[in-house]
Amino acid sequence: MHVTAVVPAAGSGSRMAGSLPKQFLRVRGVPLLSRTLMALRAAGGIDALVLVVSPDQVDRCRQEILRPFGLAVDGLVPGGADRQASVFAGVQAAPAGTDLILVHDGARPFVTPEIIRLAIAAAAEVGGAVVALPVTDTIKRAESDLRVQETPRRESLWAAQTPQVFRAALFREAHVRANAEGFRSTDDSALVERLGFPVRLVPGSRENLKITTPSDILLAELLLARGEAGR
Amino acid sequence: MHVTAVVPAAGSGSRMAGSLPKQFLRVRGVPLLSRTLMALRAAGGIDALVLVVSPDQVDRCRQEILRPFGLAVDGLVPGGADRQASVFAGVQAAPAGTDLILVHDGARPFVTPEIIRLAIAAAAEVGGAVVALPVTDTIKRAESDLRVQETPRRESLWAAQTPQVFRAALFREAHVRANAEGFRSTDDSALVERLGFPVRLVPGSRENLKITTPSDILLAELLLARGEAGR
Repeated sequence: MHVTAVVPAAGSGSRMAGSLPKQFLRVRGVPLLSRTLMALRAAGGIDALVLVVSPDQVDRCRQEILRPFGLAVDGLVPGGADRQASVFAGVQAAPAGTDLILVHDGARPFVTPEIIRLAIAAAAEVGGAVVALPVTDTIKRAESDLRVQETPRRESLWAAQTPQVFRAALFREAHVRANAEGFRSTDDSALVERLGFPVRLVPGSRENLKITTPSDILLAELLLARGEAGR
Repeated sequence: MHVTAVVPAAGSGSRMAGSLPKQFLRVRGVPLLSRTLMALRAAGGIDALVLVVSPDQVDRCRQEILRPFGLAVDGLVPGGADRQASVFAGVQAAPAGTDLILVHDGARPFVTPEIIRLAIAAAAEVGGAVVALPVTDTIKRAESDLRVQETPRRESLWAAQTPQVFRAALFREAHVRANAEGFRSTDDSALVERLGFPVRLVPGSRENLKITTPSDILLAELLLARGEAGR
């Protein structure tokens, strides 16, 4: 099985105070995106790595994210107008012969080899796999009138994380069809699900958080301090 | 409108490292539960306050939570075997003539007067109100086989917080019926919804977090440091 990881990191990080895109933020001296790429490299099971960044950040990415940490990628491609377009750009840059595409957020540096392995195995078996966490909040469903319509059983609800892994041919088709039909989503799996193809959830971990707010940065620093103290 | 606040704080805090129930944990020198009670007192619009704690913590609560901060409550009652039983114990201790019961977690010290006012107003109009936040994660629905069955539209999903406010007669009936029918839930509103009574969502704030993990404590310290620096 040839696995290509596609890492979309073209977001502007608008939820983060300051103008630096969040993937360039340093936590304990190392940019988040570099940490994420190192985690993917270290995991094993990934044969090619394609990084997608904002068109105006390509050079900076080489200089700040890759070179100082001796990181090499198999593709460094400019992103599109939204996440879906960026992921598609990454998929198109995957080497011929790729069997599985693994999509992983650039801002999730705490992914573990175990989670990656389980997600790849599930996608190889089923066709699609999404790492997800059991939801701990009580969720209410309501339309714009804010009247509660349903409280879905909490045991049946999962919050999607990444990695999300799909058979390459299937994922390409899902993107082409979504583009043709004007379907846009920030959720990679939704493109596959809408074609009726099966997707299996793979239980993730709370530490595999996406760094999107200043308090996440703080938590990341704590997690890293703990990890480095434990070595 | 006579409003009684019921504050369930009988939980064991099992998700928190250490054996101290989380409501007794001090953040910047003041127990979380004392902070929550002070926030409710300061909000205005609440006429009576009933606190529910573990049966073995009643004395300690007087000594550590109430007395040192000059806090008085209108009822200090021992909790039951689960959250629902504890809330019901609080409801039964509400003064006669209470029109609305406001339930608020003891571990949510950052509730604001504005949120309380809006929740009371919505419950007075509709019968029931739940403070809630728009869900930011992509949610997948799956049963125990972990096959994704649905990705509900994110715009229609809300994560419930507290306060939750209900007409007193309605809320009492909902508890009595749930007890009689063996329905148990950690979600106060679910008891009312299952009888078909309307409940309206009231948009809350991310800062109105429930302190349940050590990283929440850290975040609480930051929020307080910021608030106190701003004075």
